[in-house]
Amino acid sequence: MMISDGTGLSDECPVLATARIVSGKWTLLVLRDLVDGPRRFGELERSLSGISPRTLSCRLRALEEEHVVARQVYAEAPPRVEYRLTDKGEALIPIIEAMRAYGDAWLARARIPATV
Amino acid sequence: MMISDGTGLSDECPVLATARIVSGKWTLLVLRDLVDGPRRFGELERSLSGISPRTLSCRLRALEEEHVVARQVYAEAPPRVEYRLTDKGEALIPIIEAMRAYGDAWLARARIPATV
Repeated sequence: MMISDGTGLSDECPVLATARIVSGKWTLLVLRDLVDGPRRFGELERSLSGISPRTLSCRLRALEEEHVVARQVYAEAPPRVEYRLTDKGEALIPIIEAMRAYGDAWLARARIPATV
Repeated sequence: MMISDGTGLSDECPVLATARIVSGKWTLLVLRDLVDGPRRFGELERSLSGISPRTLSCRLRALEEEHVVARQVYAEAPPRVEYRLTDKGEALIPIIEAMRAYGDAWLARARIPATV
């Protein structure tokens, strides 16, 4: 079975391209929060306790550039800004869920030795 | 939907724990090769053109410590050493396949803008 797209070891490999999106700790936690619906900056900041505003805005900007997250500005006073998953972001959810299932099954705190 | 195991932002989150395994470029490429069956060190080295012996043995050791890869020594002359996926390693395949499908669909080289 091949998991490459036939381009061998190049960075164009779709597995590696996806790994770049789903590998960062804060990125994954931002995506997790947005799975439940749109969030304002301050809501994310409170939920991700320990994240600095600078790191959060940096991660959100990177996800926007990847078209995984969309930033929506509502013309209210004061203006309301919300972040939400795009279709491309929603499509990541099954991967994140599979990672969770794997972690639950194989990486539990009381580590069970694998059958070798 | 929660993708954490209820421990909040701690490093015990199963998603983050899995992300640590499937995020490295060489690690993913080693796993890809082993999906097709056991491999000797030299076979992996030739297949992963560009990897240094030091990096390859470091990645293999890390995967062994995670019980994702098993090292098998056959009592031949000269001794034959093979690396293969454990059950815990095989269980990663659906995740890697899902990442490949996502990459093919959403991260193609001629980037198609996401529907936002």
